[in-house]
Amino acid sequence: MEEGSTKWNFRGNEELNPEFSFSIKGVLNKLMKNLNETDHRPIIPLGRADPSASPCFRTTPIAEDAVIDAVRSGKFNSYAPNVGILPTRRSIAEYLSHDLPYKLSPDDVYLTAGGKQAIEVILTVLARPGANILLPRPGYPRYEARAALSHLEVRHFDLLPKKGWEVDLDGVGALADDKTVAMVIVNPGNPCGNVFTYEHLQKVAETARKLGILVIADEVYGHLAFGSTPFVPMAVFGSTVPILTLGSISKRWFVPGWRLGWIVTSDPGGFLKKYGIVECIKDYFNITSGPVTFTQGAFPQILARTSDDFFLKTINVLREAADICYDRLEEIPCITCPHKPEGAMFLLAKLNLSLLEGINDDMEFCLKLAKEESVIILPGIAVGLKNWVRITFAIEPSSLEDGLGRIKEFYLRNAKKN
Amino acid sequence: MEEGSTKWNFRGNEELNPEFSFSIKGVLNKLMKNLNETDHRPIIPLGRADPSASPCFRTTPIAEDAVIDAVRSGKFNSYAPNVGILPTRRSIAEYLSHDLPYKLSPDDVYLTAGGKQAIEVILTVLARPGANILLPRPGYPRYEARAALSHLEVRHFDLLPKKGWEVDLDGVGALADDKTVAMVIVNPGNPCGNVFTYEHLQKVAETARKLGILVIADEVYGHLAFGSTPFVPMAVFGSTVPILTLGSISKRWFVPGWRLGWIVTSDPGGFLKKYGIVECIKDYFNITSGPVTFTQGAFPQILARTSDDFFLKTINVLREAADICYDRLEEIPCITCPHKPEGAMFLLAKLNLSLLEGINDDMEFCLKLAKEESVIILPGIAVGLKNWVRITFAIEPSSLEDGLGRIKEFYLRNAKKN
Repeated sequence: MEEGSTKWNFRGNEELNPEFSFSIKGVLNKLMKNLNETDHRPIIPLGRADPSASPCFRTTPIAEDAVIDAVRSGKFNSYAPNVGILPTRRSIAEYLSHDLPYKLSPDDVYLTAGGKQAIEVILTVLARPGANILLPRPGYPRYEARAALSHLEVRHFDLLPKKGWEVDLDGVGALADDKTVAMVIVNPGNPCGNVFTYEHLQKVAETARKLGILVIADEVYGHLAFGSTPFVPMAVFGSTVPILTLGSISKRWFVPGWRLGWIVTSDPGGFLKKYGIVECIKDYFNITSGPVTFTQGAFPQILARTSDDFFLKTINVLREAADICYDRLEEIPCITCPHKPEGAMFLLAKLNLSLLEGINDDMEFCLKLAKEESVIILPGIAVGLKNWVRITFAIEPSSLEDGLGRIKEFYLRNAKKN
Repeated sequence: MEEGSTKWNFRGNEELNPEFSFSIKGVLNKLMKNLNETDHRPIIPLGRADPSASPCFRTTPIAEDAVIDAVRSGKFNSYAPNVGILPTRRSIAEYLSHDLPYKLSPDDVYLTAGGKQAIEVILTVLARPGANILLPRPGYPRYEARAALSHLEVRHFDLLPKKGWEVDLDGVGALADDKTVAMVIVNPGNPCGNVFTYEHLQKVAETARKLGILVIADEVYGHLAFGSTPFVPMAVFGSTVPILTLGSISKRWFVPGWRLGWIVTSDPGGFLKKYGIVECIKDYFNITSGPVTFTQGAFPQILARTSDDFFLKTINVLREAADICYDRLEEIPCITCPHKPEGAMFLLAKLNLSLLEGINDDMEFCLKLAKEESVIILPGIAVGLKNWVRITFAIEPSSLEDGLGRIKEFYLRNAKKN
């Protein structure tokens, strides 16, 4: 037989491609391919929040030991129960209840393979035919991609840079109709590095309640607040509106490669159960796989033993890094940051392209920066804001200084002459 | 505000429910709920292949040590590259190339969070609007559930019990049309415990080629063949037809909780690339997360160091267990196994309900068995064959004997009197 003579029926699913092209990973891969191999300086990766490669963001030995003990025990090689093992769900319920006016139960907790699987589960469960969901702009594009896969219509509300990236609540009200099922907030903010106040979260809850929609609170950066606004979990307002909280070990412990996260239902009124959301989450875990069993087994130990010093040190390092980033950018005229970051690991800044020669948009800016300076930052188009850039400061301070210095050089070299 | 006054818009996605109800996990959970709590004998779990709880199926310390070393190194806490880390993809390419007439490259290998994520990725990628896929009956229902989620039409071909569960190739030919993109085979077989011969796989390849469809070879139970038919990887026929092979560490190393698997493209003709499948797989990994980074990091060591003795012992224990299971069932008139298992961890047997009092189908049989004897076996309806049962023999031999003894008691107590 000759292969050439066969007519093959299969093709890649082109329906998916438009969404994929704006994934953060996809854009970063494109930038990485544009690096100049003859530049022998180290690459400065300010494109994504994965600080675990930096010595100052090494996780605590407590966490590593707990995983090692779980592996060594041989007790966690089997499949885990659908929604996760009970002691781990209980420990997460207790951990999160510290900050709430009511107590969560282990039954409110579903373990996931990181925050990303949590997004997959929630959007699949909510995607009834005809439904729509309200997402923030700028935002985290994994939501858009997963919504598209589930044929869930997306409508965007704005975050307002002049108001410290608060939600445009009037806009939310104008977008919603009786097919709107939920709105998403990310707090501390990705990509904006903002932290919502108690008062603003209360308004979000009241708005959602008025519209009859639930709130998906993406708190993957939970507790990583280092400015003057303290982190308040959305679940504080669970009596006002049903809340699905997403969390993860990835950021607070600097172990994104461990793939352990959770979904928590905060809903003292029991509406998520009454309207079939809880049952549907459980059903979906029948056909998807959760996190590795031994990391589940390790997590209660990690929660119990990680010291406050570890968390405090993290906050201090992040605050210092954010300060460096914000201050250095003030020396670069073509990049303006409207709001100093108070949380998470990012800063979002606006490009003034009219100051530059021959650079027409944020993608071109980032591609050229990668080529000329071996510095990777994320074009705002990947998070929904054209001609902005997202810069991660969660990296070794010396590398951060190096990277920002190179961005300044890049500006000076590419600035318009007059 | 009063909660009762709010009209909530959200509902669980009821479109998904019919599929979920026939998931293996869903059915097993239903059986577990039917256990009699006053029965103080140990529960005998013959419903799913998760032998890792049995001492005789404990994984090798080599594997545990490799994971521990990877965690301790601190080198694998970050996100992994989209399709997995290169040394691991290279080691899997080499591992699988041993049995092939050509060499796989690391670029042919994509790491997944177990075989289940591999199914998710492949079916999502193939699900163009209007496309259909051919699945075996009996089969592994995760394929049906994932196809439904992706709106990929499913058509079933039969496996023939009288021919040792070979594929009904005439049936395959009759089902396919120009919208058919692929057929799935599971070898060694789940749920049948069969192993396809070289000659039969060759015919599968030729049939698929004639129809212009690719072959998805689910080899999660790869190498677990203990009868007279040796395991032959489908990829041997990669020059005849493009093949996507699914594999996993779960079964051969008894660590399903570790969630490490792979997709491999075996396609010397380059058609998967030419027709956009390869690009689409890569794109999908932009919006999904692969396996834990440190298990990826550990796997080359696991492959290099696991001894042949460990594998040989496994095969011997499985052969012995299959013999026990098959022989004991011969003493139970209401259960007939048409084909002695030669691979994987299951046996599929037909119920003769006319011999029993007041039991009308396989689900009732399994529910009553759980209630009366605390033995869990899977009703055939969960794998597409009504009034059959799937029994796992991969469990401590003493427990297996105990469980089969209880099934015999169950028969004797429920047999029709005349």
